[in-house]
Amino acid sequence: MVFGIVGLGLIGGSLARSIKFHSKHTVYGCDLKETAILQAKMVGAIDGELTDENLPDCDVVLVALYPKDAVEWTLNHIDAFKPGSLVIDCCGVKRFVCDRLYPAFEGNPAVFMGGHPMAGRERSGFTYAQDDLFENASMILAPAPGTDIETIRRAKEIFLSIGFAKVRFTTPQEHDEMIAFTSQLAHVVSSAYVKTPLAPKHKGFSAGSFRDMTRVARLNEDMWTELFLENDDLLLSQTEALIKNLQEYADALKTRDEEKLRFLLREGREIKETLEE
Amino acid sequence: MVFGIVGLGLIGGSLARSIKFHSKHTVYGCDLKETAILQAKMVGAIDGELTDENLPDCDVVLVALYPKDAVEWTLNHIDAFKPGSLVIDCCGVKRFVCDRLYPAFEGNPAVFMGGHPMAGRERSGFTYAQDDLFENASMILAPAPGTDIETIRRAKEIFLSIGFAKVRFTTPQEHDEMIAFTSQLAHVVSSAYVKTPLAPKHKGFSAGSFRDMTRVARLNEDMWTELFLENDDLLLSQTEALIKNLQEYADALKTRDEEKLRFLLREGREIKETLEE
Repeated sequence: MVFGIVGLGLIGGSLARSIKFHSKHTVYGCDLKETAILQAKMVGAIDGELTDENLPDCDVVLVALYPKDAVEWTLNHIDAFKPGSLVIDCCGVKRFVCDRLYPAFEGNPAVFMGGHPMAGRERSGFTYAQDDLFENASMILAPAPGTDIETIRRAKEIFLSIGFAKVRFTTPQEHDEMIAFTSQLAHVVSSAYVKTPLAPKHKGFSAGSFRDMTRVARLNEDMWTELFLENDDLLLSQTEALIKNLQEYADALKTRDEEKLRFLLREGREIKETLEE
Repeated sequence: MVFGIVGLGLIGGSLARSIKFHSKHTVYGCDLKETAILQAKMVGAIDGELTDENLPDCDVVLVALYPKDAVEWTLNHIDAFKPGSLVIDCCGVKRFVCDRLYPAFEGNPAVFMGGHPMAGRERSGFTYAQDDLFENASMILAPAPGTDIETIRRAKEIFLSIGFAKVRFTTPQEHDEMIAFTSQLAHVVSSAYVKTPLAPKHKGFSAGSFRDMTRVARLNEDMWTELFLENDDLLLSQTEALIKNLQEYADALKTRDEEKLRFLLREGREIKETLEE
């Protein structure tokens, strides 16, 4: 098979490296940064540059750009994809992308599917790309309504064969709701957590819980600002729900309500234990 | 040297194992649970049971009980310590313990110092004790005002020699303020985070950020309820400060204020980067 990868940043670069690590497929890649293309060629992550000439040869095109750019690039190339090929974006929001690309692909001989590889690092760019970034990770796929079952099966097999541990099918709405909670809210909390004036004094007073709590505060603010605004309704309701939950602990502390505090902590532990099963 | 360890749970047990791993010292230990003592003997973590007979032989006594029990045990044995020996508790709050034990040790031939080994696991009991739990960890020590410099130096050397990476001296007030922020608040947030109705559906939609954010929700609610109530004023103000910070993100989302959102995220990233230096 021939893969085309649009954007050789952390995600696109790791996809290229992972495909090369797990298969013999041909990979073409492009990036606005000439150095990213050079780096990718030098480590054997791509066989050559993805161009208007070889785009129609690609069986799978993975668009690993920020959401607005991903939509724009895909619309600009909508008549260039190989008939029967799969075009999949890699963005962290799915309603924004799929609302625009599902209708644009109606009647197109290529098939578009929303995608979100569930892994990342607090670093950007091809320099940090890894061939094992998706080990143990799931690939989320949001096929358009009416996508035939054979295509869905093929997509699943492709991602399992290039290094993902599992494939999760969903709708753009369900994806955005779950991601607001599992990922976006975690970034909000980490970012808010380090704002306390005590933070710079943490050394010698902190251990694993502080490190884990604040890890993703080291984020790319341009990308996350865009992602947050493309999912603002669902992220807002998740943030407000967490504030409400935190307020319960604050109230129990304020009134020194031992039973309530123990109940809140026990409830949290019991939920956490079921999550791990 | 002879060490006495009171309480062979996760912390006391790990201290015993770490001392045996790093030194040739004699270690006596006691626990209300007969099985913990048996386990500790069987793996060579202790040389024998700590008793009223050998307590006066101990050069260092480490009291690894919940705060109320630690204070009670120490007061009950206040006349039994070897002259010149060090008595150090291992509790996660220091004002509660030191306010009671500093005055009790005035004029005592043994020296009391508040202590807090900065490591843990989301498990309790000797079964989970590790000889490398304190690798890379700091030991926090809060000596009473007027403790002589030679004793302070000796305490530092002891903890470095039994497996701690560093020793941090502080006051009970500073300790409790910092710990409210770096540790207790992290446990509140993890616990509150998993309360969202979406949590049980997280599988396939979550990655490292969710796992890290919720790790310590698996806590011991009896111990943490006691610790929280013994530090309620400082933990409450930290929790309220975080809620206020989170509200800023919620407000920026509600008004779709792109500049504000980017500013908040950039500010968090910049602070996080300085924390790692």
